[in-house]
Amino acid sequence: MEATLPTTRDDCLAADASDPLRRFRKEFALPEGVIYLDGNSLGPRPRSSSATATRVLEQEWGTGLIRSWNTAGWFELPGRLGDKLAALLGAGPGEVVVTDTTSLNLFKSLAAALRIQREAAPERKVIVTERDNFPTDIYMAEGMVDFLDQGYSVRLIDEGLPLEAALGGDVAAVALSHVNYRTGAMWDMAATTSAVHRAGALAVWDLAHAAGAVPVDLRGAGADFAVGCTYKYLNGGPGSPAFIWVNARHQDRFWQPLSGWWGHARPFAMEDSYEPVTGIGRFLCGTQPMLSMALVECGLDVSLAADMGAVREKSLRLTDLFISLVEARGAGHGLELVTPREHARRGSHVSYAHPEGYAIMQALIARGVIGDYREPHVLRFGITPLYLGCTDVWDAVDALFDILDNRLWDAPEFRERLQVT
Amino acid sequence: MEATLPTTRDDCLAADASDPLRRFRKEFALPEGVIYLDGNSLGPRPRSSSATATRVLEQEWGTGLIRSWNTAGWFELPGRLGDKLAALLGAGPGEVVVTDTTSLNLFKSLAAALRIQREAAPERKVIVTERDNFPTDIYMAEGMVDFLDQGYSVRLIDEGLPLEAALGGDVAAVALSHVNYRTGAMWDMAATTSAVHRAGALAVWDLAHAAGAVPVDLRGAGADFAVGCTYKYLNGGPGSPAFIWVNARHQDRFWQPLSGWWGHARPFAMEDSYEPVTGIGRFLCGTQPMLSMALVECGLDVSLAADMGAVREKSLRLTDLFISLVEARGAGHGLELVTPREHARRGSHVSYAHPEGYAIMQALIARGVIGDYREPHVLRFGITPLYLGCTDVWDAVDALFDILDNRLWDAPEFRERLQVT
Repeated sequence: MEATLPTTRDDCLAADASDPLRRFRKEFALPEGVIYLDGNSLGPRPRSSSATATRVLEQEWGTGLIRSWNTAGWFELPGRLGDKLAALLGAGPGEVVVTDTTSLNLFKSLAAALRIQREAAPERKVIVTERDNFPTDIYMAEGMVDFLDQGYSVRLIDEGLPLEAALGGDVAAVALSHVNYRTGAMWDMAATTSAVHRAGALAVWDLAHAAGAVPVDLRGAGADFAVGCTYKYLNGGPGSPAFIWVNARHQDRFWQPLSGWWGHARPFAMEDSYEPVTGIGRFLCGTQPMLSMALVECGLDVSLAADMGAVREKSLRLTDLFISLVEARGAGHGLELVTPREHARRGSHVSYAHPEGYAIMQALIARGVIGDYREPHVLRFGITPLYLGCTDVWDAVDALFDILDNRLWDAPEFRERLQVT
Repeated sequence: MEATLPTTRDDCLAADASDPLRRFRKEFALPEGVIYLDGNSLGPRPRSSSATATRVLEQEWGTGLIRSWNTAGWFELPGRLGDKLAALLGAGPGEVVVTDTTSLNLFKSLAAALRIQREAAPERKVIVTERDNFPTDIYMAEGMVDFLDQGYSVRLIDEGLPLEAALGGDVAAVALSHVNYRTGAMWDMAATTSAVHRAGALAVWDLAHAAGAVPVDLRGAGADFAVGCTYKYLNGGPGSPAFIWVNARHQDRFWQPLSGWWGHARPFAMEDSYEPVTGIGRFLCGTQPMLSMALVECGLDVSLAADMGAVREKSLRLTDLFISLVEARGAGHGLELVTPREHARRGSHVSYAHPEGYAIMQALIARGVIGDYREPHVLRFGITPLYLGCTDVWDAVDALFDILDNRLWDAPEFRERLQVT
């Protein structure tokens, strides 16, 4: 694929003109003068979200009032959106719900995994995850084992060490991010799940940086649990509710501890004891934020209209282009690629370490090239094929090197640390 | 107060004309032809919510994109809204956050209470709550003790039995709803908290049907934890995020198990181990749904502009009026008042049991008098002084008796059971 990459800006314009995904860009309300390379943190606004928000606010809430729980389908929305999302995850209907946050859904998954092991193999009391995983995944596991206080523990594996070395007979569950939030490195889900299963553990996948970005085949991989986020590559809106998938073979095997009334078999019978509903619904807990949830559908519908194979192909082409353009101009600038070059191991963002990464990113953002910065030293560029093209990548790299060549980052306003999410 | 109640519809019109809270009605977008008596389930839409939604969608999400986490104050919103809400709860700044759901916040509170007792009095392993409590409160407690699997249990007290009888030396925490969702009965928070403390337990209050409806003084009562909902009397929108209050004396004593990155001392340092931030922030978990959360402020600002003493006075006057009008016409209709007559024991809704309660409520809703139905047999009428007046109560009771006198409820379309939230 390297051979066919554009080598001039005109090449980029020509490539974009014949891009079969080009038509999706108009679905997003991107501001003028911005090249948005942070869709892996917060996807941009689908244009259809305005009409949806007005409908939910004025018709459903304003006029429908309490009746909308039935008439507008609010109560069914977590499952209806989950069924739509399933198509992007290699999952089936009735296997996914959109609800709560990724952190909470990870808690439910890990709790369920420990519960299964408590009966099957009570000596298995270790949750394995990566030191380089998105921190909340580690924190939720820590909170759980600390609260249980029964000899459970969290084992962190370090980058570059083989997972297998951590998979002893004491391991109950392995929680991994399919695509690493910082480096963009991707696990082989099928092979890794098999290794986890061979070791007698259960595999929990965090798809936050994978869903909508790379092809995912949860059923094909035989995974046990998966959670993820709708506000990154799925463009659901700031903090929109997360999702959870549970392999059908596990769904009815336990009762997850965040057992709120939305997961009850008969939530409106107001019974005085919990009885979980059959199926994925038992992973629901409390009443969901309907306006934020309704907007998830806008982004989801755009992703579902695109061919995921074409999205993946374009993503790799654009990340290849980014890497090759930096390589062509980057000697001596101190940029170190931290994203794998191998396609099979790369998600949909490109990251570089640089000692002045923070200031460089601020200088880029100030001129409308919006990526983000992650400790330590990492410049992160999200490549989202639904609304980016080769020319965007070209112009972004051009801006980056203007800033590097002329040390434009070395200014007080760019070096001052603000909180950056 | 009974003596001064209106006895004709003209009296009602006159009383409404001189009502000092009358000006708040225009703040809400209530549909024509509807008398809305279900604000205790889902508050109506504040008119300002349209502009707020447009701002969050178009400016903050659309144009600000990822930058809005800082520039639009998204990251601080749970605490900023919590500080505003504190004024309605008898709490101080830094004691409340708006986040997650009531169910989840109850889980955090109970987990924290058990954790405190684990160190102070490890023999205390019982969570006491009411059989008639809102079911999710029971279910969350059940999920927790089941998951802990260390001899913890839930003890349900029955209506009419004295709480003290359940408060043995084995009780760790008592979780009560300040106002009961079904009956509208209200606990004396100060006296009950004292009794709980005398018994060596911690008091966790669910304010779902109290916040914004009745004066609440958490600090004055010396309560330990409180949780509640923003979409009922606070008019935050369907499923808007809930809140949690923790008495300052407890905030830093433990680490609650839903320990997501938003509760970390340095969330953006991406550290590989959890260290809770000092204060109420450690009760945050994952990324919040910003659109639904931003709308909470619209309803909150209306409540904060009203005098809670005047709200309470009008609420009691309207519920008194409802009760007296039903009493004047209700003989032989089978309506049984289940809400306490004593003001000090009454929240802000009125409930009646009737064997045909479901069909009667459907008939009422069909003619625009929207209350709701709760199993078993209960017709529930929420009385919300910010947008209801004496005339609304008069007309609602009038419609109720037209339906009862003429058995209009006895029609197939009203008897067919739909799911009603």
